[in-house]
Amino acid sequence: MARWTFYSAPGTCALATHIALHEAGADFDVVKLDFAAGQQQSPEYLRVNPKGRVPALATEQGVLTETPALLAFVAQRFPQARLAPLDDPFAYARMQELTSYLAATAHVAHAHKRRGARWADDAAAHEAMRAKVPQTMTACAAYLEGQIVGPWVAGEEYSVADGYLFTVGSWLEGDGVDLAQFPKLTAYLARVAARPAVQRALADAR
Amino acid sequence: MARWTFYSAPGTCALATHIALHEAGADFDVVKLDFAAGQQQSPEYLRVNPKGRVPALATEQGVLTETPALLAFVAQRFPQARLAPLDDPFAYARMQELTSYLAATAHVAHAHKRRGARWADDAAAHEAMRAKVPQTMTACAAYLEGQIVGPWVAGEEYSVADGYLFTVGSWLEGDGVDLAQFPKLTAYLARVAARPAVQRALADAR
Repeated sequence: MARWTFYSAPGTCALATHIALHEAGADFDVVKLDFAAGQQQSPEYLRVNPKGRVPALATEQGVLTETPALLAFVAQRFPQARLAPLDDPFAYARMQELTSYLAATAHVAHAHKRRGARWADDAAAHEAMRAKVPQTMTACAAYLEGQIVGPWVAGEEYSVADGYLFTVGSWLEGDGVDLAQFPKLTAYLARVAARPAVQRALADAR
Repeated sequence: MARWTFYSAPGTCALATHIALHEAGADFDVVKLDFAAGQQQSPEYLRVNPKGRVPALATEQGVLTETPALLAFVAQRFPQARLAPLDDPFAYARMQELTSYLAATAHVAHAHKRRGARWADDAAAHEAMRAKVPQTMTACAAYLEGQIVGPWVAGEEYSVADGYLFTVGSWLEGDGVDLAQFPKLTAYLARVAARPAVQRALADAR
């Protein structure tokens, strides 16, 4: 297998795929984009990912984007790492139900804090969006608190969804969520943080 | 296999899973919720899906939600229907890249027309969101136009992603997108519409 290139930026959802790649033992280089300098919109990067976002993974077959798709891909390409219940359709759907929720609900709610320009042109509207983030992210945290059924989110088996829930979970305090209300989630986040692959991804991203 | 119950509402993204279930030849009952009457927030439905959204699919193993997860589940449970490239990790990731994009970018952009209350409390902010929908959905249409590489989105093989792209595509005109700018997408939507399973799902949803 050719060496992959993983495009990332600190503080973004790319951390989820980064963790999965380390859990899998994948061989990859990391390219860190400087979002403050607008590097994700540079002509060079837009040739890699025309959407101008991270994560993107350049593989021997082409570039892949979108966190839920990348997580499933890493799990499927490294079956020996047992990062998803690939052969149990219901359990796999349960895992993807969570990754879809994180992408389409929780990450979207979070993005209304600083990325309001995606959805409105008016500064007052951006401020109105920012003001609601503590409420929407608290609702997400409450939902997620109820999803954790074991040491890992799906129970006894760690999966790529855990690295993603950890990533989104790491945004909660900054988004104005009182984590003391969510003891299961708080203990869970500490448990995921202690995994060597997570520490390695965090160190790479710095 | 026990008969499943599919919870849907007209005009929503539930159509995508509904199409997939018919393409698969699944045996299921449809429960249509009346969103105008707020039925998705009734205590009875919240016991099925605490998120108060559609789609939801009650299976013999439990209730599943989130369109990308449901599409993959239907494809995996009915392998003989060949609704996804289950054994080709890259092609499968490419398919899920599209379903993730539809859920987390295109559907989210569309939702800012009528569901602004999810992300701001202020009426002026809702109006500012509505005003930008033609622009964001035109950008989505331009991206999707570039994704269609054959008769179906991924090429020669129809997949569950096609029913989802058809569903989101059916929102574009109402969202102020000039479809004449997107001839490949327009021809594609007509091609998907002509499939018997799509006609059947549309008839059920009426």
